[in-house]
Amino acid sequence: MSERVMRAGLVGCGTVGSAVVRLLAEHRDDIAARAGCRIEMARVADLDPARAKGLPIDAASFTDDANEVVEGPDIDIVVELIGGIEPARTLILAAFAAGKPVVTANKELLANRGRDLMDAADENGVDLYFEAAVGGGIPIIRPMKESLSGERLKRITGIMNGTTNYILTRMTDVGMSFGDALAEAQSLGYAEADPTADVEGFDAAAKCAILASIAFNARVNAQDVYREGISEIGADDIAYAKRLGYAIKLLAVAELDADRIAARVHPAMIPLSHPLASVRDSFNAIFLEGEKTGELMFYGRGAGGDPTATAVVGDMVAIARNLVSGSRGVGCTCFLERTVRPMSEMRSQYYVRVDVVDQPGVLARIAAVFGSNGVSIKSVVQEGKGEGAQLVFITHAANEGALQKTIAELRELSVVEAVQSVLRVEAEE
Amino acid sequence: MSERVMRAGLVGCGTVGSAVVRLLAEHRDDIAARAGCRIEMARVADLDPARAKGLPIDAASFTDDANEVVEGPDIDIVVELIGGIEPARTLILAAFAAGKPVVTANKELLANRGRDLMDAADENGVDLYFEAAVGGGIPIIRPMKESLSGERLKRITGIMNGTTNYILTRMTDVGMSFGDALAEAQSLGYAEADPTADVEGFDAAAKCAILASIAFNARVNAQDVYREGISEIGADDIAYAKRLGYAIKLLAVAELDADRIAARVHPAMIPLSHPLASVRDSFNAIFLEGEKTGELMFYGRGAGGDPTATAVVGDMVAIARNLVSGSRGVGCTCFLERTVRPMSEMRSQYYVRVDVVDQPGVLARIAAVFGSNGVSIKSVVQEGKGEGAQLVFITHAANEGALQKTIAELRELSVVEAVQSVLRVEAEE
Repeated sequence: MSERVMRAGLVGCGTVGSAVVRLLAEHRDDIAARAGCRIEMARVADLDPARAKGLPIDAASFTDDANEVVEGPDIDIVVELIGGIEPARTLILAAFAAGKPVVTANKELLANRGRDLMDAADENGVDLYFEAAVGGGIPIIRPMKESLSGERLKRITGIMNGTTNYILTRMTDVGMSFGDALAEAQSLGYAEADPTADVEGFDAAAKCAILASIAFNARVNAQDVYREGISEIGADDIAYAKRLGYAIKLLAVAELDADRIAARVHPAMIPLSHPLASVRDSFNAIFLEGEKTGELMFYGRGAGGDPTATAVVGDMVAIARNLVSGSRGVGCTCFLERTVRPMSEMRSQYYVRVDVVDQPGVLARIAAVFGSNGVSIKSVVQEGKGEGAQLVFITHAANEGALQKTIAELRELSVVEAVQSVLRVEAEE
Repeated sequence: MSERVMRAGLVGCGTVGSAVVRLLAEHRDDIAARAGCRIEMARVADLDPARAKGLPIDAASFTDDANEVVEGPDIDIVVELIGGIEPARTLILAAFAAGKPVVTANKELLANRGRDLMDAADENGVDLYFEAAVGGGIPIIRPMKESLSGERLKRITGIMNGTTNYILTRMTDVGMSFGDALAEAQSLGYAEADPTADVEGFDAAAKCAILASIAFNARVNAQDVYREGISEIGADDIAYAKRLGYAIKLLAVAELDADRIAARVHPAMIPLSHPLASVRDSFNAIFLEGEKTGELMFYGRGAGGDPTATAVVGDMVAIARNLVSGSRGVGCTCFLERTVRPMSEMRSQYYVRVDVVDQPGVLARIAAVFGSNGVSIKSVVQEGKGEGAQLVFITHAANEGALQKTIAELRELSVVEAVQSVLRVEAEE
């Protein structure tokens, strides 16, 4: 084993950063054997000096100046874990300009400015690795970019946000309301004080953009991803899903339609027999469909300091190996230009729950609206509800535009009190 | 993109080999973009000239002499897909001696002579890649060797043989006997005319040895893996499993116990809530438990020409990239020496089904045998059965040696007509 030492510098020493520092120290010898050199955490930058406490590093290597990491002439590998677009972007570009490879877990930055970062890495001939940006501890980026380089992927369907999966699991298992389940997730540390990024699907949309870019070899940005959150899911929807043989999950779906990419994040019903239906609690899973491999699924902890740190350290080992051998890993694989398909052209099955007045002829009038828009009904359940009634429809695959027109017209009918919910039904027909 | 061309040679043009040839031709441009060079199938060796028919290669590049591939001065990458130990081993060593990197799917060879192959690759400074040897189209070898290089794995639990998983699924779903399900699997091409390698667990044991070697950084050979097949599983066992909340699967388990490795393949009951329980039909899945990542699972098609070919081509792309950059991939990671724990020292829960005479005091006598061996009973079900009765026990975790002694003593009891089956219960306590 070489006695060469690679000196790493970390920017951002929060939950994941401190787990990286500890992991490098605890597994020092294993990592050296695998990397072909020692990897030493030589500098850690964070604005909060309290974060240095208890870490297995020299006090002198802690700084509040991130530039000492990204520009430090003695630093071989930069790890960026502060998150957000700025100053992370400027720091990474400075590291590249100084000839340093970078490991990041920054999904927001990659999903919004991925092209700039990749181009800058290429111009400077250095590596940019980001396994931890999607799926936490689940190996997915490198398997997709490298192991599956002989395959053409057709579709990705993923549970990419652990917070919302935890909330939906609790709503399903014990009948909690969305608000109670969110409060529980917050008290357990699974959800942040401001849960918007998770609950409204922004986090999953960023991850979806990153995986779609890799799968389809064309840049997809966060704003290309259609997005709906889970805050409108009600106990009635959960109950109907169970009764009809589905689970409700916040899905991120990216697919190739002819030469166009379609990417979307929204709650959806999937059949209980689908492998994603049994992904519970805060677990994540990414289900891939390929031309030749058929179905693949990668499952594990999508967040948390220790799982995410293993992904960061795995990337550091790869970069260290590349530095030792004087090579580079796989760079940007977005070598195609593809357009994004408008959401209105999507086809899906739908679940539609409508409150109606309970009088003769109502079902016929509602069914006529579906029919006149070319949306074919697969099944319907009618139940009394107080003075009125509730109708639940599952459609055959239909055009999203036609479905939205159907919903708008239903809302105009005098016999319809409210369209309570519209959910897509995935992976069935 | 470089216009450099890597010339590949294939030895063994059966189902997987011909799928590799077709995949390279169909995805020519995608693969070139990902590899940084063109990859051309320049020579194909097979003893059966009929196999050249319909392949997208020049007739002149087909040969019945494998040495023209492994020694051909114009061949850059050798793909070995003939299987079995000889002549595959001699051919791969000849390729290494000629300075050529090798891709193989040969689990039997790797599990029995892995050390020799790895040493020879190192001595000659060339790559040996084998993603297709375990899990068919599922990326597992490189994720474990590379993405998880920052992690210490504790246990692998896998469904690594699609034939037996198909048979057990059919026995469970429609109540088929083992024989009928095997015959069906044979008629569908999922099982071979001589099903021994699959049904008796030899195939899964070889794969288990390969993954254990990678996970625990120490060489494990096929003969180090304890092995039982599924041919003794009866309809009664399937029925009791369902009733008690379990699925019966042929599991490959490798784990680290202090510094010793334990590896085994046998049918086992796992709780229906475990992610492996819902792996159906001929699918494979590998469930990993790590110190930091917690649980991970990789799921997909474990066999078949096209899925396996994607793994082979993914390896070819990696090797081509290494050749272009003048580097090598991760070589042998068995840098530790570990001993194998004897099976008798394993601890597990057990399911034991016993036919007894139906008379007072029988349960007490049998329970006393468990108790005197220190095997604690967790639950028992008793049912009438013709003149006699059937007792089904689930034990708490117990020592394998103590359990085997219990079974031997039960067989000596006059009130015991037969010990019908003994199955381990995994992943519960």
